[in-house]
Amino acid sequence: MNWFDEEESPEELGEFGLIERIARLTGSGNTHDSMGIGDDCAVIRNTSNGFATLITTDMLVEGRHFKRNWISAEDLGYTSLAVNISDISAMGGKPRYALLSIGLPGNTDPDWLNGFFGGIKGLCDTHGMKLIGGDTVKSNSVIVNFTVLGSIPEKNILLRSGAKPGDKLGLIGRVGDSGAGLRLLKQSSSPDLPLHRHLISAHNRPTIYVREAIFLAESGFVHSMIDVSDGIRSDAAHIAKQSGAKLTIHTDRLPVSDVLAEVCNAFSWSPEEIALTAGEDYALLFSFHSDREENLKRSFQNSFPDTPFSVIGSVSDGNAGVRFLKNGRNFDPGAHGFDQFKSD
Amino acid sequence: MNWFDEEESPEELGEFGLIERIARLTGSGNTHDSMGIGDDCAVIRNTSNGFATLITTDMLVEGRHFKRNWISAEDLGYTSLAVNISDISAMGGKPRYALLSIGLPGNTDPDWLNGFFGGIKGLCDTHGMKLIGGDTVKSNSVIVNFTVLGSIPEKNILLRSGAKPGDKLGLIGRVGDSGAGLRLLKQSSSPDLPLHRHLISAHNRPTIYVREAIFLAESGFVHSMIDVSDGIRSDAAHIAKQSGAKLTIHTDRLPVSDVLAEVCNAFSWSPEEIALTAGEDYALLFSFHSDREENLKRSFQNSFPDTPFSVIGSVSDGNAGVRFLKNGRNFDPGAHGFDQFKSD
Repeated sequence: MNWFDEEESPEELGEFGLIERIARLTGSGNTHDSMGIGDDCAVIRNTSNGFATLITTDMLVEGRHFKRNWISAEDLGYTSLAVNISDISAMGGKPRYALLSIGLPGNTDPDWLNGFFGGIKGLCDTHGMKLIGGDTVKSNSVIVNFTVLGSIPEKNILLRSGAKPGDKLGLIGRVGDSGAGLRLLKQSSSPDLPLHRHLISAHNRPTIYVREAIFLAESGFVHSMIDVSDGIRSDAAHIAKQSGAKLTIHTDRLPVSDVLAEVCNAFSWSPEEIALTAGEDYALLFSFHSDREENLKRSFQNSFPDTPFSVIGSVSDGNAGVRFLKNGRNFDPGAHGFDQFKSD
Repeated sequence: MNWFDEEESPEELGEFGLIERIARLTGSGNTHDSMGIGDDCAVIRNTSNGFATLITTDMLVEGRHFKRNWISAEDLGYTSLAVNISDISAMGGKPRYALLSIGLPGNTDPDWLNGFFGGIKGLCDTHGMKLIGGDTVKSNSVIVNFTVLGSIPEKNILLRSGAKPGDKLGLIGRVGDSGAGLRLLKQSSSPDLPLHRHLISAHNRPTIYVREAIFLAESGFVHSMIDVSDGIRSDAAHIAKQSGAKLTIHTDRLPVSDVLAEVCNAFSWSPEEIALTAGEDYALLFSFHSDREENLKRSFQNSFPDTPFSVIGSVSDGNAGVRFLKNGRNFDPGAHGFDQFKSD
């Protein structure tokens, strides 16, 4: 059977084209007991107790996704697990178990291994998670593949497809710091400047919002959610497409850190462009019942006084897509989101 | 914290030493809700319905575990999923869901992709499984990481640690064909000889025993099980160690195929050595209640008339370990099982 036509190599299709072809394998998608490809996690329903299992998996390859001279072993361990936990959070679930497949060169330094597994152990302990299995293989470069399982009452699952016309759009956390940190790493900027260190750390060891996500899912006021892994432009488009709705985002309401603003000023970078097109911030983008804005925000900030909660836009009827406004005028965020198969 | 001491690089520790260090991360191992590293799968208990979830994951790296000119795309897709299904079978479970992380060069041929996913699709259909998620990344070589979930009534789970003195040892399937096929590939033997093709196919597209494993687990007579992925010598040692028992295996009772015997004769290879030390046959090695031998074997062969069921040894009190006898005399199977970190 042919899922891939002639000329449809991964670099021609791009990441989302490739995933779409693979998804054809699973048939029409959702069945009574599971939901497949197309959201942050796969969902397996457990009809006997009202809970569902969320599962996600993520592969990081040295040289493509990280360089060992750009990130410490501990931060790599932390981050490679954190990005999977963030997928569980994107649907409102509680992370429970992890499996790790790891490819390692035979001569990997024990100090590096201690750092790497220390980063994993610390994050497992923080969230009461357990590493229950995995695989170890020899390889020329480091390859990290985590699979993370979470649980959630089925009624609380937040899908990308749940946004409703009339909803407002909320954002938990900040955006752009990680993308600016990556730019600094790429230009080998002096990392001993404290501001630069702050942004590089946002890239190498991003904050994730586990308890905040559970809070939102349990509130009953949130209709859809995604984590900002590929950039708001790309991730908001997933909500728009899967909800069949039009999203409007006010770029002047994006929560940009003071550090990002200052460094962007020094380099003449556009903070909006970075915030919209660079990924790996792992902020949570969600839509919620507009009548509940005050209620939701107040109760959230009571529980999480240090976590930014921003209202950045709204959902309306219309062609599925995302419109950006800056001070009321149309704004083109520039570069498209990152597609690894279409970039070098 | 230091899990790895100085000089403990992966090649110094070997695969099992590395896994043992990582297992320290999980603390003492088993808790009320899950069992971790040390069996074919991790186990998550679901207290509400008496069922458990089995999970396993496996990474295959091009150049280390396969070469694209040695195995067709379809066989690679089949096998990379099959080895995970076999882990579910090793505990007696029913495979249900798969997640695939795949690293691909950007210019991968669409024909190759069609073959690869065709192999996966065929195996999913055979066993009523569903591909529910995954990740796609760009990489210089092909990397395949499957995670497979299965289900099993908790009372039926077959652990490596369940062997009891007095048990007999059974084997489902044949051993050695896959190892001989790999030898033929390595010496670039002419693959158009039908006998060689048969053995190479046993390596590239191994038979797995899904329904047979469920039958054994449901029989109530089987006490422990493992799949022969690293060779009987190595895998029998896992049962011995984890059960704290002594295993005796009669090498003259090993089910060696006529083809293997003939090819070994032509090359002056020892079929016993290949059968004991080469892996990737995915036969099932298990211990069972000795009083039930006739009953178990008859009912098994009634259900699976074409699948070999061999009684190859016994379990006794004594130092945990494995003893091999050939025609009643001690037999040294030669080379140790494969350890990827200790070999080139």
